[in-house]
Amino acid sequence: MYRIGIDLGGTNIAVGLVNEKYEIVAHHSVPTGASRPAEQVIADMGDAVEAVLSKAGVAVEACESIGIGSPGNCDSERGVVVRAYNLGWFDVPVCDILQRRFGIPVRLSNDANCAALAETVAGAAIGCENMVLITLGTGVGGGIIIDGKIYAGMRSAGAELGHMLLVLDGEPCTCGRRGCWETYASATALIRQARQAAAEHPDSLLARTAPDQITGLAVFEAADKGDAAAQAVIDRYCQYVAAGFTDLVNALAPEMILLGGGISRQGERILAPMRDYVMNNCFGQKDGAIPVIKAAALGNEAGIIGAAAL
Amino acid sequence: MYRIGIDLGGTNIAVGLVNEKYEIVAHHSVPTGASRPAEQVIADMGDAVEAVLSKAGVAVEACESIGIGSPGNCDSERGVVVRAYNLGWFDVPVCDILQRRFGIPVRLSNDANCAALAETVAGAAIGCENMVLITLGTGVGGGIIIDGKIYAGMRSAGAELGHMLLVLDGEPCTCGRRGCWETYASATALIRQARQAAAEHPDSLLARTAPDQITGLAVFEAADKGDAAAQAVIDRYCQYVAAGFTDLVNALAPEMILLGGGISRQGERILAPMRDYVMNNCFGQKDGAIPVIKAAALGNEAGIIGAAAL
Repeated sequence: MYRIGIDLGGTNIAVGLVNEKYEIVAHHSVPTGASRPAEQVIADMGDAVEAVLSKAGVAVEACESIGIGSPGNCDSERGVVVRAYNLGWFDVPVCDILQRRFGIPVRLSNDANCAALAETVAGAAIGCENMVLITLGTGVGGGIIIDGKIYAGMRSAGAELGHMLLVLDGEPCTCGRRGCWETYASATALIRQARQAAAEHPDSLLARTAPDQITGLAVFEAADKGDAAAQAVIDRYCQYVAAGFTDLVNALAPEMILLGGGISRQGERILAPMRDYVMNNCFGQKDGAIPVIKAAALGNEAGIIGAAAL
Repeated sequence: MYRIGIDLGGTNIAVGLVNEKYEIVAHHSVPTGASRPAEQVIADMGDAVEAVLSKAGVAVEACESIGIGSPGNCDSERGVVVRAYNLGWFDVPVCDILQRRFGIPVRLSNDANCAALAETVAGAAIGCENMVLITLGTGVGGGIIIDGKIYAGMRSAGAELGHMLLVLDGEPCTCGRRGCWETYASATALIRQARQAAAEHPDSLLARTAPDQITGLAVFEAADKGDAAAQAVIDRYCQYVAAGFTDLVNALAPEMILLGGGISRQGERILAPMRDYVMNNCFGQKDGAIPVIKAAALGNEAGIIGAAAL
């Protein structure tokens, strides 16, 4: 049997047909056109599913299910996108609509949860029953897998791991709270920290770049060229990320923590200090339940694969 | 069928026989004598089980299982107390030893986990599938129930919820880390905060008590008498506790958070401001996945009942 995965994004709808090994055997992508009514977007999702089936020469009857990974808050039990600001969707029963059209089970989860599930079926955490995927981007995304399944809690509203505290009453967060982990550990936060360091160290390499030109990558490149200010930003940033990892270890004792997002491509130069920090700070320190900490393996395909695996 | 629960403490071994409604129908308690070799303590645990069965006139064959709630880090899968400082136990295979003696399944979990499980079978969270129990005492203890079962993660080392961060690099914690939730939210922390307030407000009621006589209860009593300094300590303390609750909501979205420990007897005067804080700070604020927040119902019996329910 095949499975269909739909990665519903603010910009594109990407649909993939996966085989039993979770390999994508056919793929189709169309613009989301998120400003349109949800019904039209969902109709296009359905058309994209048919396009993929047609490309692969596979009948819908040969498919076990359709899975949808959506941004925002998704109620998996009811199959409803509760709130997705960048789609403009509120209480959209997307699963029902597609299930009526295709007659096979349609499942839904948040995109961060799908990415975590994808890693357990086809990525860096195959066979791992309890793991957490943390994605560093504009924010800090989280997906929790417990007993091999997505854990999202009541009304699928949990796993907002970027909104755990790092500093009570600290930096203001977009969520309305202050001091959330993501205000220190997101890629956005890294750039803010680098701009501040550039201002404080006018002789640094970092300061030779115009503040609005400083990117995450630029910080690592400056450090590569021996810039102490850039390296100090990276060192502190790794502590911010790893402090959140330590919370996850103490609370959930996962077997594995995977790091995703563009910054994760920096590999060992950030993973090694993060591992050290976790080992020195988790409950029980070196005798504690220290998980494997490594980079996520799946890139853009994680959304489709994870949705298919729902 | 009956079940046997053993609440193994640093001071006493309390054994209870429970019926299918998790009512304790017979009870027996002996001193732990924790300075003795583990074998002797375990022999006494077995004798206490026999005493309970004899009191109730029930044969061991009429019992489904024996459960043990132990302090420290317990590996439930292997049935081994890995590390319990106040028993002086390291890698003690307590389940195997009692299973050989009684011939029925013997199960083990951490006492905080057992207390959480007890609330779901016979306390304030009956029928609740996903909940967290937080016990405020010398430290901040945590027990997580997911899908109706204890969740403790790899090597049963998780649910150390008191050791999630409240303030990065904040107050030193006994665990070796700095800024853990329990350094702000334990009963011990409340007393420390009150002593500090007494020193800063020499005209307060709080300051009329000798610093080493200030207890948690004394802070609430001073506030009852209109002491603004004491009330300010309580207000801030409730925020510390509720900030951790908010992290739990954002991460796990439990249906319910129960508060245990002596302080929980203050009831609504602390629960109401905690609920407000969670609603104003959790992801999605009032539209977020706000759990029921209330006091735990079981007192000293939680250990036996939870162990029996393992």
